[in-house]
Amino acid sequence: MAGLTIKDIARICDVSISTVSRAINNDPGINARTRERVLQVVKEFNYIPNNSARNLKMAESNTIVLLVKGINNPFFQSMFPYFQAGLEKEGYQYLLHTIDEDADEAYAAEEITKEKRLKGIIFLGGILDYPEVVLENIQVPAVLCSVAVASPVLDKAEPRISMVSIDDEAEAYKAVSYFCRKGHRRIAIIAGRKGDYTVGSRRLAGYRRALQDYGIPFDPELVGYQKEDLPEYSEANGYAAAMELLKSGRRFTAFFVISDRMAMGVYKAIYDTGKKIPEDYSVIGFDGIEAVRYMYPALTTMIQPARKMAQSSIDLLMDQINGDTRKKHVMYEAELHERDSVRTIEDKE
Amino acid sequence: MAGLTIKDIARICDVSISTVSRAINNDPGINARTRERVLQVVKEFNYIPNNSARNLKMAESNTIVLLVKGINNPFFQSMFPYFQAGLEKEGYQYLLHTIDEDADEAYAAEEITKEKRLKGIIFLGGILDYPEVVLENIQVPAVLCSVAVASPVLDKAEPRISMVSIDDEAEAYKAVSYFCRKGHRRIAIIAGRKGDYTVGSRRLAGYRRALQDYGIPFDPELVGYQKEDLPEYSEANGYAAAMELLKSGRRFTAFFVISDRMAMGVYKAIYDTGKKIPEDYSVIGFDGIEAVRYMYPALTTMIQPARKMAQSSIDLLMDQINGDTRKKHVMYEAELHERDSVRTIEDKE
Repeated sequence: MAGLTIKDIARICDVSISTVSRAINNDPGINARTRERVLQVVKEFNYIPNNSARNLKMAESNTIVLLVKGINNPFFQSMFPYFQAGLEKEGYQYLLHTIDEDADEAYAAEEITKEKRLKGIIFLGGILDYPEVVLENIQVPAVLCSVAVASPVLDKAEPRISMVSIDDEAEAYKAVSYFCRKGHRRIAIIAGRKGDYTVGSRRLAGYRRALQDYGIPFDPELVGYQKEDLPEYSEANGYAAAMELLKSGRRFTAFFVISDRMAMGVYKAIYDTGKKIPEDYSVIGFDGIEAVRYMYPALTTMIQPARKMAQSSIDLLMDQINGDTRKKHVMYEAELHERDSVRTIEDKE
Repeated sequence: MAGLTIKDIARICDVSISTVSRAINNDPGINARTRERVLQVVKEFNYIPNNSARNLKMAESNTIVLLVKGINNPFFQSMFPYFQAGLEKEGYQYLLHTIDEDADEAYAAEEITKEKRLKGIIFLGGILDYPEVVLENIQVPAVLCSVAVASPVLDKAEPRISMVSIDDEAEAYKAVSYFCRKGHRRIAIIAGRKGDYTVGSRRLAGYRRALQDYGIPFDPELVGYQKEDLPEYSEANGYAAAMELLKSGRRFTAFFVISDRMAMGVYKAIYDTGKKIPEDYSVIGFDGIEAVRYMYPALTTMIQPARKMAQSSIDLLMDQINGDTRKKHVMYEAELHERDSVRTIEDKE
């Protein structure tokens, strides 16, 4: 039964791919019964883990893998040239390894790094529920860039993993505070999916804290969650969530959208309902991808420092490769770039 | 002097990177004197070609490299998931190898394929002036997907290379004919850069042929060339070229834009001059990327069949890998997707 994939195993066991991965990797985040059942099936079908990754071997020890989850994320795409140039400048070969949205990055990384000759790995995007466990299992220097991890890892003064990120809660707070200073009090948010516990929930938390600090009661009816059945952070999801809010009859004057791509969908929804931007609805996006400068009106958005984040990820990796074992967490600030999608409300409502 | 890159050699010789590459590879497309001078410098500095590519080795013989020029091209990006899924389905490991806009794909490919264990290579994007020479030098099955090649290679009934493409001249003809049928007679084009001899010139040729067939005189003043100093096919270039036409005082009613990303810039230019779409200017794009469905008004565009083109590239490669040495050229048709950016002009001007 060679050729059987982790997806097959997951299907057979009727569990998620990451559950299979956790079982195989003795990850704590899985209950004993489930692990037993999965390992039973793995044994029964003589499953050989992920051939594709196994076959990725490097002859020289100067190869760095950029493991990307979310190849369609324009913000990540904008980082590729920086990673390429930066790593080549350091004299390293760079391989872009993309994985499906439904694939497990922890598992993929372990398979890739089983190749001892690999010099390092940079995770770009995705979610790691147990980053320490994962990075312990990985035998090479690793850095997480824009990877969503469970908050506890971040709260430490002594970071236990090297990562580059922005403070999603704080940046969302900035965006929403800006709306408040502009006189908006009925502010909707296009957030993550219901039950999101990573980026989406942090940005939602920042939204709520800003409202609170400006004495604006939180109205759950103004939270537009992304749909399960549409690609996450896509234009389509932004459109669907915004349309629902626009048709709900709730009164509001602003949209805080947690990704630029979704903001494109939000614009479309606003126009399709015959409304104007910013006259009827003000909009703030998040990411700062090139295309939004050409939306009409130009989108005001929170710009993440793509180039700095890529370079910093490379620097942290080089430190480890050069023997500096201290883990560092570099947190960047996003910057609100004012364009034309936000109006000032003179008489506070 | 190890660590010296092909760029350094190019700089020292004051020639382009591809010229250095051609000299090294005894490519006919370079005059003897130049070759001599380049090889002299290569010898003098003991230049060891492209280490980064050299170090890409595969342990197993089931790795396919997707060599991408134009990682920022959203149309190519939309193909990545199809390549990944399709190649994995065939049981092949897939590596995305990106190269700079200013890098030479022929050279990169030869360096990569020096690794005998590599099973095949798919070129995505870029330009190959001497595809036959390049593919002869490459010792593994290869397929060109959306690669601009000199026309002669295409004109043969007996294709000498395996490639997947669309007929840029014919598809541009379709788009412009559609404008004509809608009553437009003053049609501008946002074309390639001046002197472009690949995709840009073919689409321009299709534009001219359509005008001719509809009895509309060609007006060179209505051709907006992309700027040398801006990224090719970018929003910024579309904006700049369109703005120039809009400010030229020439009368016209339509823009045929040879890429969707540029169309975003064209929209912005039209709006910034206080005009409406499609009331004042109708617009047709090219590619069919997801984002343009969310432009306002939704962009009418020529949709290239991304999924089919990716799968077909894989199929052609599999044929070669399985011993079928016949070269095939699969030409796809793009499809005009009517949305809301084109109006009908009732009384022909």
